[in-house]
Amino acid sequence: MAEATTLERTDRTRETDNPSSLVAHFGADKPLRLDAGVALAPFQIAYQTYGTLNADRSNAVLVLHALTGDQHVANVHPVTGKPGWWSETMIGPGLPIDTNRYFVICPNVIGGCMGSSGPASTNPATDRPWGLEFPVITIRDMVRSQAMLLDHLGIETLFSVAGGSMGGMQVLEWLASYPKRVFSALPIAAATRHSAQNIAFHEVGRQAVMADPEWRGGRYFAEGTDPRRGLAVARMGAHITYLSDAALHRKFGRRFQDRANPTFSFDADFQVESYLRYQGSSFVERFDANSYLYLTRAMDYFDIAADHNGVLGNAFKGIETRICVISFTSDWLFPTVESREIVHALNAAGARVSFAEIVTDKGHDAFLLDEPEFIAIVRGFLEGASRARGLTPATR
Amino acid sequence: MAEATTLERTDRTRETDNPSSLVAHFGADKPLRLDAGVALAPFQIAYQTYGTLNADRSNAVLVLHALTGDQHVANVHPVTGKPGWWSETMIGPGLPIDTNRYFVICPNVIGGCMGSSGPASTNPATDRPWGLEFPVITIRDMVRSQAMLLDHLGIETLFSVAGGSMGGMQVLEWLASYPKRVFSALPIAAATRHSAQNIAFHEVGRQAVMADPEWRGGRYFAEGTDPRRGLAVARMGAHITYLSDAALHRKFGRRFQDRANPTFSFDADFQVESYLRYQGSSFVERFDANSYLYLTRAMDYFDIAADHNGVLGNAFKGIETRICVISFTSDWLFPTVESREIVHALNAAGARVSFAEIVTDKGHDAFLLDEPEFIAIVRGFLEGASRARGLTPATR
Repeated sequence: MAEATTLERTDRTRETDNPSSLVAHFGADKPLRLDAGVALAPFQIAYQTYGTLNADRSNAVLVLHALTGDQHVANVHPVTGKPGWWSETMIGPGLPIDTNRYFVICPNVIGGCMGSSGPASTNPATDRPWGLEFPVITIRDMVRSQAMLLDHLGIETLFSVAGGSMGGMQVLEWLASYPKRVFSALPIAAATRHSAQNIAFHEVGRQAVMADPEWRGGRYFAEGTDPRRGLAVARMGAHITYLSDAALHRKFGRRFQDRANPTFSFDADFQVESYLRYQGSSFVERFDANSYLYLTRAMDYFDIAADHNGVLGNAFKGIETRICVISFTSDWLFPTVESREIVHALNAAGARVSFAEIVTDKGHDAFLLDEPEFIAIVRGFLEGASRARGLTPATR
Repeated sequence: MAEATTLERTDRTRETDNPSSLVAHFGADKPLRLDAGVALAPFQIAYQTYGTLNADRSNAVLVLHALTGDQHVANVHPVTGKPGWWSETMIGPGLPIDTNRYFVICPNVIGGCMGSSGPASTNPATDRPWGLEFPVITIRDMVRSQAMLLDHLGIETLFSVAGGSMGGMQVLEWLASYPKRVFSALPIAAATRHSAQNIAFHEVGRQAVMADPEWRGGRYFAEGTDPRRGLAVARMGAHITYLSDAALHRKFGRRFQDRANPTFSFDADFQVESYLRYQGSSFVERFDANSYLYLTRAMDYFDIAADHNGVLGNAFKGIETRICVISFTSDWLFPTVESREIVHALNAAGARVSFAEIVTDKGHDAFLLDEPEFIAIVRGFLEGASRARGLTPATR
């Protein structure tokens, strides 16, 4: 993958023994034109790669992360020390996204906080962190920047693009914006627009962050404060929506934490309370509060039909990409009905689309978990696409 | 209703032209024995009444409010100036809970903030607001205090007890604790125990309050601060759970507020955002932050089966009360399956129980709305019970 790109390893701001990400720099001559009507330049994209790009550059798989994910999809995370979010089930030698066979690229989204330009980055005009002066970005802006990354890497066409949740939104936007650059696609647990209920949950999270006096109008770096309490509350609320009533009941029920009886206090009596508090406090160690505002906003603005005169089918006209849409029965954040709308629009556009609804009680987060049927479907779909593309068979 | 009671009108702390509530005082000789193992004395219960108690004291209907409701069920609210929460559909002359016929009593719960003893009340031992020194209370404590209120009013047996959500929990607890004092009962949109998901949502709300630096460990009155931002965030999150995805879609969809296009900012671009912000900011004008902690905690602790050796049917053995359980199809906070569990337990106990699941897309809050089928069912149930009880027919 080397000659067409300028690759450079940078250290993250946090100390780590783990590999840092690759970073693609785009100078003043390569601005990112944003939906908000302004341009971002210079900017950079941090990304990870796994596997090897083949000679005809036809085996690249772009993997796109969700709201609170990042590019560390198949390596130990440099901040948390935990396995990458798809490393155990999906990406690796012999796994469905087989690194013996494919060249996997996973970028941190624009607006994120793991090395790509975002509100925590330095604004070159002021030499201070951008904060709320960073332009509001959209899912389409993320995808536009990813297309620039591919140009930078000398990759014209992706063998596949895959992602769940906000990653799935980006997959759908790839289909709408650059259909000819995508041979196959896996939009998972996603929708072509964010629902009113989801906007509502995001707004509560943003208000929780902005209600924290340490947020300081987004200038917490300059003021030496840290809106961790607000961000933790936002994360706790959001985390409930990633699970399901049934999963919470199965995992925690009404069981007490380290005690037999209620304490009649506001301690975390119930296991589910301890769990949520942990989710909140660990999240703030690895995520930037302003990034949380920007990425939730990008999801809220996402509405592919609105970008195409209100007709979703218009977005996908003439598309030749092979597409497998996947939803999960207990996902109430992106319910199956919204995946069916994607399928109907793709069918109306004459696309090659298959659809799988996976039966699970694990909720939205099922796309990150070891769901055998889900993983088998991704494997089968990519094997079929791989044969159609004429890639070398996988060694298993 | 007069001779058995000492009635006294008190002013609320906020100025108002509207009628203040009646208040029943219980002195040191009448302690409220709490599940937490302590006693509360003295204490008081603020309540409203509508209609007239008949000569044989057989026409009393106890109406019990939800988490953020209060005793102003059928009069203009003294703080908000809005109609009472069941005044337009349920309680009044000719309405299902007919004030020409029944004597309606609606108390503010213990732990509340509209005149009953709660964390905002003065602790007689210190002459300062209780704050977090107020004992943690349970749904059973609320009901125990209500039984004391009935004694105080000289009412042995209720013709009926009705309430939705936390009010419905209290109805169920009346059936478990004082079945012989209740001729008929309407537990609506309720459950015999709070689910893990509901505990989780409540915990997020509490953390939002406690994350507000103005909360000051609950001592905000003494310190002259006001944790309104944290409480508003809590309310915004909770409010989403009172509605449904479909209702939010129907009411707001992705429509923008006062504009044609997104502003690419963190303003309330979407109508649903403005609506939620309004819900948050108006709520804090009428509710005490510590009360919110106490009442959510009471709901979390609620588990009738756990109080009866783990067998729900044990709670209702030999019960003769006529019961109508009501749920709403789109209520995901207290879904129908939880109402069916109530019905199964009551059936197992040989109770006279009927069950109605109302088809609506309005979510949990449907119990507060003009749902014709729901209102007709309450009317029919109470008319039947009224005949069985030998009350005078209603004038309609």
